[in-house]
Amino acid sequence: MRLKILNILKNNQDWVSGETLCRELGVSRTAVWKHVSGLREDGYRIEARANLGYRLTDAPDIPYPAEVMSGLSTSVLGLNLVHMEEVASTNAEAKKLAREGCPEGTVIVAETQKGGKGRLGRVWFSPRSRGLWFSIVLRPPINLVDTPQVTMVTAVAVATAVREHTGVPAGIKWPNDILVDGKKICGILVELNAEMDCVNFLVAGIGLNVNIKKNEFPPELADIVTSLEIESGQHIYRVPLLRCLLQHLEKWYHRWLNEGFAAVLNKWRQMCVTLDCPVTVHTIKETYSGYAVDVDDTGALLVRTGDGSVQRLIAGEVTLRKQA
Amino acid sequence: MRLKILNILKNNQDWVSGETLCRELGVSRTAVWKHVSGLREDGYRIEARANLGYRLTDAPDIPYPAEVMSGLSTSVLGLNLVHMEEVASTNAEAKKLAREGCPEGTVIVAETQKGGKGRLGRVWFSPRSRGLWFSIVLRPPINLVDTPQVTMVTAVAVATAVREHTGVPAGIKWPNDILVDGKKICGILVELNAEMDCVNFLVAGIGLNVNIKKNEFPPELADIVTSLEIESGQHIYRVPLLRCLLQHLEKWYHRWLNEGFAAVLNKWRQMCVTLDCPVTVHTIKETYSGYAVDVDDTGALLVRTGDGSVQRLIAGEVTLRKQA
Repeated sequence: MRLKILNILKNNQDWVSGETLCRELGVSRTAVWKHVSGLREDGYRIEARANLGYRLTDAPDIPYPAEVMSGLSTSVLGLNLVHMEEVASTNAEAKKLAREGCPEGTVIVAETQKGGKGRLGRVWFSPRSRGLWFSIVLRPPINLVDTPQVTMVTAVAVATAVREHTGVPAGIKWPNDILVDGKKICGILVELNAEMDCVNFLVAGIGLNVNIKKNEFPPELADIVTSLEIESGQHIYRVPLLRCLLQHLEKWYHRWLNEGFAAVLNKWRQMCVTLDCPVTVHTIKETYSGYAVDVDDTGALLVRTGDGSVQRLIAGEVTLRKQA
Repeated sequence: MRLKILNILKNNQDWVSGETLCRELGVSRTAVWKHVSGLREDGYRIEARANLGYRLTDAPDIPYPAEVMSGLSTSVLGLNLVHMEEVASTNAEAKKLAREGCPEGTVIVAETQKGGKGRLGRVWFSPRSRGLWFSIVLRPPINLVDTPQVTMVTAVAVATAVREHTGVPAGIKWPNDILVDGKKICGILVELNAEMDCVNFLVAGIGLNVNIKKNEFPPELADIVTSLEIESGQHIYRVPLLRCLLQHLEKWYHRWLNEGFAAVLNKWRQMCVTLDCPVTVHTIKETYSGYAVDVDDTGALLVRTGDGSVQRLIAGEVTLRKQA
């Protein structure tokens, strides 16, 4: 009902009479008044005048479904969007909805995460309303072995959207960290539920630092992370940014499914900031140093080590080595 | 408490007085009597005599924890075992327990499954108490790309246990169906929950047809499936068979983790009954015919097609082609 009132007010720049609202929605004047009060509590500015009715003068920059969907040009991603004030982690919520059978493209976005997770079990700092902390449920008809490609699809889409929407020169570190000037601005955590022959669902979790100031990061992160506000020098509205992200994510997701991985990989290579760089590699079995020379056509990182041989890295962590 | 009474009775071949049970367990005679009644309802035969006490004379062939664990020589698999009368599917139960953090090696075994699942969403026929329908939770420290190896580890262990325990000449069809004389006797469904860098957990579901008679299978399955009773000509006790399966599963699982995939693959090749056979391959993208010539060192099936080229099959379904 709130969403209906909001849509009517949005579609009328001018005043809408209480009578019109009652008639179109089939509810009483008292009911309309209660819903308007609820919308005001959510941050909407709605004027009310006797004889004139109601008028929407300002909407909050909070990724409520009504806000994000208004003007969203996707055909799948975000059509089912759930906004929550606080969650343990948006990936955990998304996995739960996916198990219960939610449609592909379902998005969970939260104002804050109390147990936000990065790769390898690390904590992800998710201060309230200062970033976009969201997860997307995908159900691609692919084999298990092709799932690592999804992380690179996601990285390409996020880096492209950030560049386009804010002008901040986002780059990619293998396989899917988004960096600006060597500092992390966005983390991506893809989780999956699969059989050997098919993927039941994937959840792509994205944590993008939007309006976090330098002194708001915990001291241990201060030198290695950044935000769009720091890099662009201005406050960034989250709702249009999320729309832009969903549009690019859908575009690259469908391009990958329809055209294959090669197109994604070409774009990924262009946006990668750690090729031809000295790196240290950490896997669950070993640690070694070398030069990141390229990715192969499955997305594995090729690292040339001291003895001239090339190691193929499928999973693991890469850190940039500072050269003397 | 029931388990404690059972253990005391099992450890004493002779009569155990009611007084002894009350003292050792710290409960009243009425309580002992109630628990003994419960055990009898579960199928245990317990004699009771005034002046002598209680004596266990027979235990049911039902995979209750107390039955399976008595004489089980594993160090991880089955130490936490949950028996259920009826479930939708043991894999679904196992995944739920795994998400809640159950220890590695947890086993769920059910008398019947109402929604038993095979690979690719197929139904698995699971008549009450006539088979071993169980799932094991594993948490191997491996990369996502190595998970298909688990299906082959499981197939090797199951085929070995069946041969050893019953003498039935079980063979393997790529990647992990267990066949006897071309008919399916056991299906294995591995599901996983993972990130790109690590596996959160795997669930290996095993459905083994034990004491199903030929005329008890649905007509559409009659020609393509079989059971241990049909093949061996005798009733097979499920509890010792499950112990044997768990022991072989643990042995091969640890061998794979400690020594690598090569040892598993050698054994798998020896037990495979479809190498050098004409096959039809069905993948999510295509269908083609050829000869299954070998598996490579990642477990992929190598199929030589009509034009002499060799296709590498990572995921899909293989059916044996009858030759003219």
